[in-house]
Amino acid sequence: MTATLTNSRDAALLERARHVIPNGMWGHMATRAIAPGYPQFFSRADGCRVWDVDGNEFIDFMCAWGPNVLGYHHPEVQAAALEQLRVVDCGNGPTERVVELAELLTGTLDNADWCLFQKNGTDATTASVTIARAGTGKRKVIMAKGAYHGAVPWCSPSVVGVTEADRAHLMTFEWGDIAGLEAVVAEAGDDLAAIILTAYRHDVGRDQEMPTEAFLRAARAACDRSGAMLILDDVRAGFRLDVRGSWARYGVKPDLATYSKSIANGWPLACVAGSDRARDGADKIFTTGSFWYGAVAMAAALTTVRILRDTDAIAHTEAMGLRLRAGLDEVAKRNGFRLRQTGPAQMPVVLVDGDVDLRIGNALCAAALRHGVFLHPKHNMFLCAAHGPAEIDRAIEAVDAAFGDIIAAGFVPA
Amino acid sequence: MTATLTNSRDAALLERARHVIPNGMWGHMATRAIAPGYPQFFSRADGCRVWDVDGNEFIDFMCAWGPNVLGYHHPEVQAAALEQLRVVDCGNGPTERVVELAELLTGTLDNADWCLFQKNGTDATTASVTIARAGTGKRKVIMAKGAYHGAVPWCSPSVVGVTEADRAHLMTFEWGDIAGLEAVVAEAGDDLAAIILTAYRHDVGRDQEMPTEAFLRAARAACDRSGAMLILDDVRAGFRLDVRGSWARYGVKPDLATYSKSIANGWPLACVAGSDRARDGADKIFTTGSFWYGAVAMAAALTTVRILRDTDAIAHTEAMGLRLRAGLDEVAKRNGFRLRQTGPAQMPVVLVDGDVDLRIGNALCAAALRHGVFLHPKHNMFLCAAHGPAEIDRAIEAVDAAFGDIIAAGFVPA
Repeated sequence: MTATLTNSRDAALLERARHVIPNGMWGHMATRAIAPGYPQFFSRADGCRVWDVDGNEFIDFMCAWGPNVLGYHHPEVQAAALEQLRVVDCGNGPTERVVELAELLTGTLDNADWCLFQKNGTDATTASVTIARAGTGKRKVIMAKGAYHGAVPWCSPSVVGVTEADRAHLMTFEWGDIAGLEAVVAEAGDDLAAIILTAYRHDVGRDQEMPTEAFLRAARAACDRSGAMLILDDVRAGFRLDVRGSWARYGVKPDLATYSKSIANGWPLACVAGSDRARDGADKIFTTGSFWYGAVAMAAALTTVRILRDTDAIAHTEAMGLRLRAGLDEVAKRNGFRLRQTGPAQMPVVLVDGDVDLRIGNALCAAALRHGVFLHPKHNMFLCAAHGPAEIDRAIEAVDAAFGDIIAAGFVPA
Repeated sequence: MTATLTNSRDAALLERARHVIPNGMWGHMATRAIAPGYPQFFSRADGCRVWDVDGNEFIDFMCAWGPNVLGYHHPEVQAAALEQLRVVDCGNGPTERVVELAELLTGTLDNADWCLFQKNGTDATTASVTIARAGTGKRKVIMAKGAYHGAVPWCSPSVVGVTEADRAHLMTFEWGDIAGLEAVVAEAGDDLAAIILTAYRHDVGRDQEMPTEAFLRAARAACDRSGAMLILDDVRAGFRLDVRGSWARYGVKPDLATYSKSIANGWPLACVAGSDRARDGADKIFTTGSFWYGAVAMAAALTTVRILRDTDAIAHTEAMGLRLRAGLDEVAKRNGFRLRQTGPAQMPVVLVDGDVDLRIGNALCAAALRHGVFLHPKHNMFLCAAHGPAEIDRAIEAVDAAFGDIIAAGFVPA
């Protein structure tokens, strides 16, 4: 028998929310956009677990959609943040923390000579494009079709409220297609300011794809030839694959790299890290925000990045991801289904083979929720350092039970 | 004899910063852009006081450039934030706080039926323009020349790194000029999406100017005639003049209003509050950010807004501003100078009459720093509820002494 997921408080809150929040909730955390059955409101998080407002407990594989990299309420990170909060967060200027953090990051990240800090990933991607244009004096920006670089007019996945002019100088190509990239670079001619690429292809609803070294080298060479800036958008993957940045393993150096989500283990912060090649543009632009100098998030980032650098947190998380991947494959097979599990093990996309309309995946994830595991049917998920073998094995058992539930409900492999 | 301002730690940090941060610091908190003599780095804030990294203590009249409205470390606000932090800040979705805050704000702000929350003031102004375009299906946006609505390409005060296309549909007119506004509205024709206006004219380096009711009514009427949205950019002044929004006293209702700086007494948060007239556009757009659902800043905002609504905090702050204004006028006169003090008393701009190149004002503010008072020579300043008569009188004495210093250094009225 399927455990039931109580949701009376969630439903009541959603009803109140519909009056005072457009659609009841906006953006990527609007659960109506995920699949039926997901709770909208949460009351608690700890380690690798979250609790919804009805008290349902889940082993969490979304990690706040990325920010939680070490575990919710990581004691050392929280201690550093609270110690800073005791003296000052936002004052009339920054604190020593901004210098320490810029020094730590330039000493840790590949090809980073300087940093600027913001609050949103979108702040960082937007600033990096502005810096590239300021430094090169050129206008065209090339990105991969369907890649997510933020939610403002120049790059939003929705064009509602966006004018053609907002994207007049944006050019696209198919991720990974070297000839396609070369063609659009040629089209940009001598007006190419930047190529911006996510760390790897992590578009929603499809198999993830790691870059080939040849693809990254082609992008680097195109920028070198044309004087353009190569921007690594590491907002989603940064500090999860490699503390040096997600392209360090390929030996391909970005001129500008953007970080946010996991940089401070949940405290709001973003960063543009640039090389000296991009410093001139950074010197020239005006970019700022009321809370961008806040020291508490920087104190949290200092501790988070040091832990990621000095411990096996990333390797452990990857190992847990591999354990989950193997277990899910096995329970799927045992239940007569086949999974497509792609991307880094610590940022998995799990799709049911042949499930083109996601009907099976949605039902499976809804069933997994009822068995205490929070998965996502089409977006990449996130593991954190607080996941241990016990939680992974418990999650695999829950998915096994969820397969049983959907089979009992009449679902068959596509 | 002038007290000296030690700055060895500040200078050392600035030297380190120059290597790893473009220009040593970015944005509005880069003190090189204010005037010589200002410390760049701070170590502590409390109530209405800040301390720089060298331990110099100042009575603070910048309030973190706006966020500090009740006093740094206000105990009730901090308690609410910490209580929320104990359970969850960023989880897999928002908490009950988002509904409570949207209910509080729609019940408090004039003409607000719904809210969306973000992190930066720029997030709110950008989203409000996108909502206006989505709802109207039109493109043109009218703003006053020189008005500050954020630091991204569509509105940044700097055009470095900005393309013409970024502002293709932006039209400007001179603040307060009704005929000028009507002319640009006519030029926009049937393509007008929005008129966006700051609460009052608070451009840097000039006398502040309150709106006339006729001007606001003309903007409202133009939007009504054309189907466009009237956007109040209350990011800087919101919750400082009137808890209902800065135009409530004029009886002119915005369709969309943006808030940030002081909404959570220093915790990072922004808000678009809209009327039902603007809800359709808000329903349609996609806007989001990794930390926009964070509950800690919302818990802080709930307490901050309730205090501002239920106590005399705003009236007290205004009274302290008037006391400061009277005192400064008197000491200036006594020293043979004349001041131009404009705008709301709790957000004063203080300029020395005839001081076109700000030489006198810069020297006066640098001298005031040495006497323990943090002023700004050209940007509007901010008072907070933690300023009391003792601090105001102490500040007036310090400015009196600062006048003495600059007179001794040879400055004379312009």
